[in-house]
Parts: sequence; structure tokens; C-alpha cells
Amino acid sequence: MHRTPSGSTLGPGGLDIAQAFFKPIHGSALPSSSNRRTKISVIGAGNVGMAIAQTILTQDLTDELTLVDAKADKLRGEMLDLQHAAAFLPRTKINASVDYAVTAGSDLCIVTAGARQIQGESRLNLLQRNVALFRNIIPPLANYSPDAILLIVSNPVDVLTYVAWKLSGFPTNRVIGTGTNLDSSRFRFLIADHLDVNAQDVQAFIVGEHGDSSVALWSSISVGGVPVLSFLEKQQIAYEKETLESIHKAVVDSAYEVISLKGYTSWAIGYSAAGLARSILRDQRSIHPVSVLAKGLYGVEGGDVFLSLPAQLGRGGVLGVTNVHLTDEETRRLRDSARTILEVHSQLGL
Amino acid sequence: MHRTPSGSTLGPGGLDIAQAFFKPIHGSALPSSSNRRTKISVIGAGNVGMAIAQTILTQDLTDELTLVDAKADKLRGEMLDLQHAAAFLPRTKINASVDYAVTAGSDLCIVTAGARQIQGESRLNLLQRNVALFRNIIPPLANYSPDAILLIVSNPVDVLTYVAWKLSGFPTNRVIGTGTNLDSSRFRFLIADHLDVNAQDVQAFIVGEHGDSSVALWSSISVGGVPVLSFLEKQQIAYEKETLESIHKAVVDSAYEVISLKGYTSWAIGYSAAGLARSILRDQRSIHPVSVLAKGLYGVEGGDVFLSLPAQLGRGGVLGVTNVHLTDEETRRLRDSARTILEVHSQLGL
Amino acid sequence: MHRTPSGSTLGPGGLDIAQAFFKPIHGSALPSSSNRRTKISVIGAGNVGMAIAQTILTQDLTDELTLVDAKADKLRGEMLDLQHAAAFLPRTKINASVDYAVTAGSDLCIVTAGARQIQGESRLNLLQRNVALFRNIIPPLANYSPDAILLIVSNPVDVLTYVAWKLSGFPTNRVIGTGTNLDSSRFRFLIADHLDVNAQDVQAFIVGEHGDSSVALWSSISVGGVPVLSFLEKQQIAYEKETLESIHKAVVDSAYEVISLKGYTSWAIGYSAAGLARSILRDQRSIHPVSVLAKGLYGVEGGDVFLSLPAQLGRGGVLGVTNVHLTDEETRRLRDSARTILEVHSQLGL
Amino acid sequence: MHRTPSGSTLGPGGLDIAQAFFKPIHGSALPSSSNRRTKISVIGAGNVGMAIAQTILTQDLTDELTLVDAKADKLRGEMLDLQHAAAFLPRTKINASVDYAVTAGSDLCIVTAGARQIQGESRLNLLQRNVALFRNIIPPLANYSPDAILLIVSNPVDVLTYVAWKLSGFPTNRVIGTGTNLDSSRFRFLIADHLDVNAQDVQAFIVGEHGDSSVALWSSISVGGVPVLSFLEKQQIAYEKETLESIHKAVVDSAYEVISLKGYTSWAIGYSAAGLARSILRDQRSIHPVSVLAKGLYGVEGGDVFLSLPAQLGRGGVLGVTNVHLTDEETRRLRDSARTILEVHSQLGL
Repeated sequence: MHRTPSGSTLGPGGLDIAQAFFKPIHGSALPSSSNRRTKISVIGAGNVGMAIAQTILTQDLTDELTLVDAKADKLRGEMLDLQHAAAFLPRTKINASVDYAVTAGSDLCIVTAGARQIQGESRLNLLQRNVALFRNIIPPLANYSPDAILLIVSNPVDVLTYVAWKLSGFPTNRVIGTGTNLDSSRFRFLIADHLDVNAQDVQAFIVGEHGDSSVALWSSISVGGVPVLSFLEKQQIAYEKETLESIHKAVVDSAYEVISLKGYTSWAIGYSAAGLARSILRDQRSIHPVSVLAKGLYGVEGGDVFLSLPAQLGRGGVLGVTNVHLTDEETRRLRDSARTILEVHSQLGL
Repeated sequence: MHRTPSGSTLGPGGLDIAQAFFKPIHGSALPSSSNRRTKISVIGAGNVGMAIAQTILTQDLTDELTLVDAKADKLRGEMLDLQHAAAFLPRTKINASVDYAVTAGSDLCIVTAGARQIQGESRLNLLQRNVALFRNIIPPLANYSPDAILLIVSNPVDVLTYVAWKLSGFPTNRVIGTGTNLDSSRFRFLIADHLDVNAQDVQAFIVGEHGDSSVALWSSISVGGVPVLSFLEKQQIAYEKETLESIHKAVVDSAYEVISLKGYTSWAIGYSAAGLARSILRDQRSIHPVSVLAKGLYGVEGGDVFLSLPAQLGRGGVLGVTNVHLTDEETRRLRDSARTILEVHSQLGL
Repeated sequence: MHRTPSGSTLGPGGLDIAQAFFKPIHGSALPSSSNRRTKISVIGAGNVGMAIAQTILTQDLTDELTLVDAKADKLRGEMLDLQHAAAFLPRTKINASVDYAVTAGSDLCIVTAGARQIQGESRLNLLQRNVALFRNIIPPLANYSPDAILLIVSNPVDVLTYVAWKLSGFPTNRVIGTGTNLDSSRFRFLIADHLDVNAQDVQAFIVGEHGDSSVALWSSISVGGVPVLSFLEKQQIAYEKETLESIHKAVVDSAYEVISLKGYTSWAIGYSAAGLARSILRDQRSIHPVSVLAKGLYGVEGGDVFLSLPAQLGRGGVLGVTNVHLTDEETRRLRDSARTILEVHSQLGL
Repeated sequence: MHRTPSGSTLGPGGLDIAQAFFKPIHGSALPSSSNRRTKISVIGAGNVGMAIAQTILTQDLTDELTLVDAKADKLRGEMLDLQHAAAFLPRTKINASVDYAVTAGSDLCIVTAGARQIQGESRLNLLQRNVALFRNIIPPLANYSPDAILLIVSNPVDVLTYVAWKLSGFPTNRVIGTGTNLDSSRFRFLIADHLDVNAQDVQAFIVGEHGDSSVALWSSISVGGVPVLSFLEKQQIAYEKETLESIHKAVVDSAYEVISLKGYTSWAIGYSAAGLARSILRDQRSIHPVSVLAKGLYGVEGGDVFLSLPAQLGRGGVLGVTNVHLTDEETRRLRDSARTILEVHSQLGL
């Protein structure tokens, strides 16, 4: 879809001007093919996909940004709207096409496309339609960018990350779901807002299944280096188990609240995915709660299941999973989530 | 509307924790009232307002960001969606309310609110509804932030910037319309894309009325220090006046194109307004084509009319207008635009 | 010392050009005096002061940057060297003078000036010379910027922060020493380098006196949310108390190592101070181990003594001290440091 | 030289901890060798080299930064001083060695090493010592990083860029001298300071030989889109040719002034080189006045000579030279410089 927008208007003389404007220097060689430019493709130009794309652009994370969507008009409109900001930003090459060929050579492919629930539709039916959608998305992505890392945003993210892994044939370190990365940010915001501190000084992880059955790791929460639970105990500040659960519930509810108020979520997931893109492409080796193959970790058994765990991310994708201590109950909840997801897998027919 | 989100969930014990967590130091004084924190208010939480707010947040341009909109639910949803990203960003205080009191003490108020055209409605009728809307917006903004700078984004931007100036009673240097700042970026993108250069190396201004009657300043275009028109002449590259006009037309059309494709424009105007906010609040003294009171400049006579001219912006707002040379035809077009706008003014009943 | 550098070369015609180049707009008012521009002054243009000033400039933390040093030539050379980069950076006004009047209206004053030890000189004699130096620096700073926050970098930083507090008459929340902020970064680097993780994922504080008697808070170390000591215990990984002490010793030694290798330290302290400036001026409410009045905290008694503790910093300076749990031995060491410093105070004659 | 600094202190148990802390996930593959990480090597850890390295680090331009210098102690001290800031910055891998093997696989090599003039030494003798130095630097760099781009900062930069080109055997688009990039920034600063505008709004090029015989392109100067010379003519503001020459002289003198005042220049050249690194590695396709092979351009004849011309830089190095119009006198001066430099070449014995 990308063309020189002014090409038609400048007419046949256009090329002459471009050629006259710059002179080549003597002895110049063509750039070698090993050019280490960075390319990110975003699949799906809806509210989530565009919030991610625009945040990546603002944060100057890539040399080339490519959008793919089935709706050609909407897609071209979004591409032009980003391109028109060229004079306000560092240069990024922005492309868009309904054809996956435009994604060739991507370092990172971020998949946000997903079917919407039809009224009265069962969750399983919706999921099967999403699997059908992924059958059209993942194989061409893997084909055009065999070395890429896949970052799955579409929901239900844990199951669809598994689907993307199966359909791509990629090694597990190169297939990641955004999982509970955003849930954890909401958790940190709630705690930070309550204590009036910077949310970046709050360490707090929500792991497990993205959604209602996620697991808050209370024992790992610290603020400015102070472990919160043991602080409360030492200060002899009483708290009820119900209090902790009500905070976790507030995190889970906050996604539903935003959707009920504005119809969808976009900005926070945009920052979440852009932050993961940064850690991966700039090889930050930093730790994020994201959906990874959890088999064999924390006693998760019974099959290939993707769940969010605190994973170290870098240029190679998932570098490892932090060996965080879970209480017996946290472990039990994690395994319950794994079992539920594995049951869903068994119905997918993959 | 802002409250401590976790307040209710943590219950009465919440306060105790916050108080116990930090100890005051001896001899500490309350911060003086002269605290030089930066505050930006965005009026209107639609696609344009939110693109501006989110870009300001990503670019870390302010210490406090406040949203105002008449729709309480949508507004709260957008506020929460931004707040949930707290762990991914430097700390910015984010508030929202349907009540203008929340904007008190703003350094910059960005107005994006506007009525939508009803099918069959005359332009004048639409404009009068917008004036009525501004009667509810501008006086409370000016009242709560008497030292603020007003940046008007709503269309028709030149007329509404005039309206905001009249209703605010502010000096002219503190009332600015985004005007042709975005048109100029589109112009620079088209030229840069054609020559395959960085758009930031292209100097090119579109001035005058934002919209169909805008004026492209051909004589001021340069690329990497090379004035383009004289370059073409020296290279004896023929070009027709029609060619130039077709490029200008492509700029004008590109806004319509984006609207026809995706339904509205958002990202580029978001970057445009955020860039102006940056120049103003960080006192950059840089030059942007924005809508300012043009009376007496370039022979514009007959009344108070706002038109885009290359203006120097800084912490004081408009510091001056660049004395750029216009051809006779460019001057004539500018005056024609001024006359058309003045006729509109006469119908507003202000 | 600042003047228009080209003033003399452009001759009397210079002013005409500037006046002709920009035209004022009608009805423009002078900017009000409440202009919220940000100003940082750096006292001392040696290696440390210049590393701080240059990092602040690169990170775009202030609208105005002012340098003061007793050596007029060196000072002017450094100012020009920074100014010459204007085209590569966002606009920052850069001034320099031997006269403290240039610092008027600063939001933050960073003091790096200090006497160098003469061979054979006692520590007390050196300190008394530094106190004499501060008598010439602090009162004029406090006089020209009565609302400023003072950030002391000069060594011995804890004693000199106390001296600055006494000489300024400022409330304690507005007098801060960089203290163990850099020691803590070195600590985090050593741990991160060992585990091959991002140092920003390592939480670890060194507190107390900056220097040999600093206290490493082992119980507060966590990596990606995993408390390290309890992790080792749960993994039944044996470690000796000597091992921990040898890591702390490596931190203390690393400053000496850099000094022995390159003659001084500059870059890391530059980033440390710039980061504190950011947290303060952009009101980040984030937690840093810096030197604050410790009287009454953690059982520190006996007088006014400044020691590094994890403090929350924002636009008001020190907002509070984190109520971190110390072991008995950590508390004892902290009190020992306090006593040693108080003995030094008694010899200062303040 | 790089080793795990804490390795020795943590003892044999160190490895165990690192292995226990992260668990691998199932099915993980080793990162492919096509990992597109960015690596910059800086040769020479003096004031200029370190200002460049530190600015690159602050601006987060590379994934890996490598320093090479002949002085092992100084080099290790500088490396540690940068590494100690790890907790304040995004993660960058920092290495240093006296052995060029550490530079293997660099995308960009920045050469700042140079011999210092001995009192009474002739310029030719100094140059010959520098050529001898380059014989030890350039071949190993080219050998270890055959696809790298070389950016030469050492003076006399035009001759030494030619020497680097000859010794490397690289195509001309991959050998660049910083040339008059900094002179042009100083030029823009002087003009901007005079008119009180943002230096980034000033377009102005100094080209030709870096140093006394550089050529200011008066006809290409514009401020905010206003060509300055024609502006002065249209405003009938008289100016003498001497006035223009005195501004150019102020630019040339400003380097000498900084050196006489502080002993060397560092910050501005640091920002200059970091900016070029950014344009190259982030493929900005932006235009900078840098030293490139000028043979055949603007009538420069007689041999292979490097001179600064406005060149477009991107991931491929020099993409082309802007076809800017020179007056007859500007062309004559450029050719004179070329002749002078060619005479020097003939004495080098390359």
C-alpha cells in the first residue's frame, strides 16, 4: 500500500528533482545486506494496535514500523495519520498493507487482531473463531520473518500465545504473551496511589492466567526496598486476608471498569506492549510478568501451557524465568489455572 | 472525580499504612506556594483530545495533566486508562473532572472540544453552536487559570481562536490556535518523502487560514539549507505553476483523505499540539506556523483576525512573528483569507 | 560573564537586524513575573561539577543552567564549550559567572566545590578549609535563591550537608546530600553484573555515612521482586557472612579504584546528581538513599546529624524517610556512624 | 579487560546463585547469530573520546559500547566510572580493552586518538606521527569490523579521514570525518544567540576544510524559513562584507578560545559526534556538514581529497552530497582548500 504519496502530484519531473538534489560520492558501495535496521510489525489496526504503534513511534523504538489489517481503508488512514507527523518526530519508515509480505524481515511482530464476541456466542465458539483467525495470521508472519519474536496481545492471551507457538513452529523463547504485564502495572499503580509514591518504586507481580484467576504475589511486594507484608507485621498493623483480596479484586475489576466506561482499553496496553518491545529489542535483560511456556516450572504439569511468570526479556526473547518463592496457596492457584487452560487447549483441535 | 482508587478497598486501615510507611524528618517545612510545577489541561476527551493528552504523557512534558469533558463516564474511563500505565512512565499526576475547578492553576489549556455538524446544518449554524460551547468553556478556564496560555485546536480554528481571545480577555500573546502547524508538517512530509530525506531537514511553511484557502510559501522552502525554487531554476529544471499547486492541493486533501479513510484525524494533530506545548512550556523560542492575531502584519487590515503566521513561541506564548518575505500573490491570498474570516466574525454577535 | 558572543562582531547594526527580524503582534502583554521556568545552578566547574552540568543538559532537565566557579577562565571555557552544542540540543539558557548574583532565582543549587587535600594535611584541617569555603558559597546562594533546594556533592558529604544546612538557615527538607546514592548504584551494578540482569531490576540500598563506614541493607535486597537473602535460604545455598561483607567492601573500594586509575570520579556521580535533580524538579516522589537530617530516626540521637537514608524526593525536597526494617547490627552501625560524625561537628566551631 | 567485577568477591558460590536464580523455559533455542544488536567502539579515552562515549551512553544510542586506549589504567578507570552508573541508565553493555579484538563486530568505530604536538615540532612531523598511529589503529579496526562505518574525529580531520580511508580499504561511503559539523553548530549558535531564537531553527553551513580555511555558505543561511541575506537586502539593511567575515572569524576563533580557556574542547565535540552516530545508526537520512571524499564535486579536482560538504547520512553511511549552490568565491575557496590538502597528502608517503 505504501507509495510515494507525492509521486502522482509531482508528475514525471519528480524523479529528476530527486536525482538532481543529491550527488553520489566517488567509490561509494551499496550498503551490505547485513544492515542492522530494526523492524516492528503490528497486526491489527484497531484501538489496541494503534495505541501500541503510536507509542512505539513516540518512544522511537524502531527504524521501521509496519501495520497490517484486513480493512484496507482504515489501515491506510491510520498509516497516513502517523506519517503526517514526520516533521515532529525522529525519522521512522512507516508502511502498511493488507498483504503480509510487507512484514518481511521483522524483528518483532505484535499481534493484536482478534474476533469480537457476537451476542449469545459461547466462549468456546469465540475462541475457535480466533484460532481460525490466527491460522491466517501466524503462518505468513513466521514465513516472512523466520527469526522474529512474536508478542501476542489478543485475548484470551494465554491460550492464543499457545496457539501462536504451535502455528509458528518457533522455539518457546520467541513466543511471548503480554499476559499479566498490564495487570501488574495496575497493581503497582493502586499501591503507589495509596502510598503517594512513584509507581516505579513499587515492586509487585501478578502472575498466572491473565484475567479473573490471576495470582497476586503478596510476599514479593516491596516499596522502595521495604517488603510490605513483613513491614505490616513488624509494625503490628493488622490486616485481614480479605483486605489483600479486595486489592487484587480491584486490579481485576479495573479492566472491566475501563471497558464499561470508555468501551475498550487502549492507552495502558499500548504502553505495556511498547515497554516489552523496548526490553526485547534493546536487549535490556529486564524482568516482566509475561506469558511464557510454564511447563515444569512451579510444579505446572500435564502439558504445554502458557502462563505469566516473571521472565527476563532480551534480544533473544525469553532468557529465563525468575525463581520467585510462591506460597503453597499461590502454587495451588497457579496449577489450577494451568489445568483450566489445558482443558481449553484440548477443545481447540490443534 | 479523582479519588484514591484503592481508598475504599483498603478500608479504614489504609491511612494507617501510609502514615506508618514514611516518617517525616525534623525541621521540615511545608513546600512554599511558589512551587513551580507544570500543569496542562486538555478540554475534550474525544479522539483529538486523548491523542494530545497521551502524547504529552509519553513525552513527559508536564508534572500534572488534567482532562475535562462533559461526558463523565467516558472521561473517567480515559483517565483510568492513562493512570494504569503509571509503572511504565515517569510520574505525572493525572486528574479528570466535569468541573473546571480541576483546571485551576494551569500553565497551558488545550481546547479540543467542538460541536459536530448535524446533517443539513449550515456552517454558520454549526459555528454559532461552537461559540455557545466556548461560552461555557473559555470563561471558567480563564477564571481558574488567569495566567495560562490558551491553545485552541477546535475547528474552524482561526475563528474559534478569535472567539477564545474575546471570551478570555487575555492579551494576544497568550491565545494561540494550532492553525497550519499540522498542514506544514504534512507539506514537509510530502516533500521529504519525495526526496527521501528526513522531514526535519525540510523547511516549509503553510500559512494563512487553516483549510482550503491556506497559502504555501514556496519561496521559503529549503531542504538541508538548499532553497528549492532557486535550486530548480539554477538546475534549469522546468516546473509548472500547476505542479506547485498540485502539491499544495495534496496537503489540503490529505486531511480529508484521512477523515474519509478512518473517520477522523488524531495522531498527527496529537503530535502537533504536543510539540507546541513543548515549545511553550520549555521556553524553546522556536518558530511554528500557528494562528495569531494578524492585524497590521503583512498588510492585513480591517479588524481583529487570527491567521497562521510563522510565530516564535516560548514561555510567554507568542514572542513575535517572523518577518518572512511574501510574494504579491501570497500577500493577496492572505488578505483575502482575512476578509473572509472577518465576514464570519461579523455574524457571530460577539 | 554571559554576553551576546556575536555582539561585538556584528557591530552596531546587530540590534537593527534582531529588531527587524521579528515583528510584535498587537495587544501582546509582557510575560508575567510568575513565569515558571526551571533554573539549576552548579557551583564548581571541576570534573564533578561539569559532569553533572553536562548530564543535566543532555537529559534536558532545566530551562536555565548556571555555572559558578572562582576560576574565571576555566569557567568561561566550560560555558562556551556547552553553548557551542546549541544546535544539537533542545534550547537551554546557559550562563556562567564568578559572581553569585547569576544564580538568582534558582530552583536547585548543586554544590560540588571543595578544597583539595594538601600533602600531610590532617583531615580536620582540610575540613576546616572546606567549612571556610562553604561560608563563601552557601550564604550568597541562600540569599539569591531563598526558595531553592540545596544538593551537596562535596566531600565529606554528610558533614558538609550539615554545614550547608546551618549556614543556609533553610528548613531540613531543602538541604540534601548525594550521600550513598552512588554507592547504592555501584552496589546494584555489582549484583546485576553478577546475575546478568538489568541493574534497574535490582533493589539494594547502602545507607549511613558515605564512605568506609556505610551500611549495606542486606535484608532489603531484591532482584525482580525476589528477596535475595531469603531466596538463598530457601534454595539452601550456603553463604558466609564474609561473602556479604566482601561485596560491600568491593563497593567501598570501587570509588578508590576509579580514583587510583583515572585520578578522580566524574561520570557516575554526574548521573547520580542529575537523577536526583530530576526526581526533585519533576516531582517524582521517588525513593533514593541520600543524606538527610537523621535525628530521631532509627534511634539516632545526640544531635543534628546528616546520614543517608532511603528518602522520598519531590518538588518540596525531602518528603519523608522510608520506614525500612534494620537488623540490630545495622542499627548499631548507623548509630556508630552518627556518633563519629557528631564528634567531627563539635570541632567545626559552627 | 572486562570481567565480572564481583566474581572474585562472591567466590565459587557465585555461579551457583546465578544459575539458581533463573530457570530456563522448555523448548528454548539459542539466539540466532543474526542478532541485530548495535555496537559502537570509541578509540581513545581522552577528554574527547570520553565526552563522546558518555553522551552516547546518556542518549541511549547503542546496545554495546566499547572503549580502546593504549593506557590500560586510565581506560579501566573510565570504564568502571561509566559502569557504576548502571542503575541510573537503560542497560548498555560497556567493555574496554587495550586489545582491538574487543571491537569485533562494531557497527560504528569513532576514532579520537591522536598524537599531541611536541614543542617546536613541525606540523608535518606531527602529522607523520599521527599517520604512524593510524597504521596501528585502522587496520585492526577494519579487520575486526569489516562492515563498520568509520567516523574520524582526530585532527587534522580531513587528512586523517583520507588516511583512514586508505588504510581501511573501505568504500568511501563508510569513512566519514566529523569535519565542520561542530563549526556549523557554533555558527548556528552565534546567529541564534544574536537573534534570540532556537539554534535548531537556524540553517547555516560551514563547509570545506575544518579549521582556518573553512568556508561559510552565506547564501544558504535561513532562520525559521527566512533566507537571511535576501531578508537584509529586502529590508534595505546595509551590511559590509567585513561584517560577515567577522562572524565567520568568530566561529573559527571560538575553538581556539575554548582551548585557551579550559585547555581543550570536549562537550561540544561530544554532542557533535553522538549526533552523527545517531543519524547513521538510526538511519535518519539527515543532512550534516561532514568530511567526505569530495573528488569531482563542486569542481574539486586533482586527486582524492576529503572535505566537509552537506552530506546525507544513514545506516549506509554517506548516502549523497547535497547539491547546494556555491558562489564563485565560495567555489574558489573550496578548491584552494582542496589543493592545500592534496599537497599535504603528497608528503605522507601513503
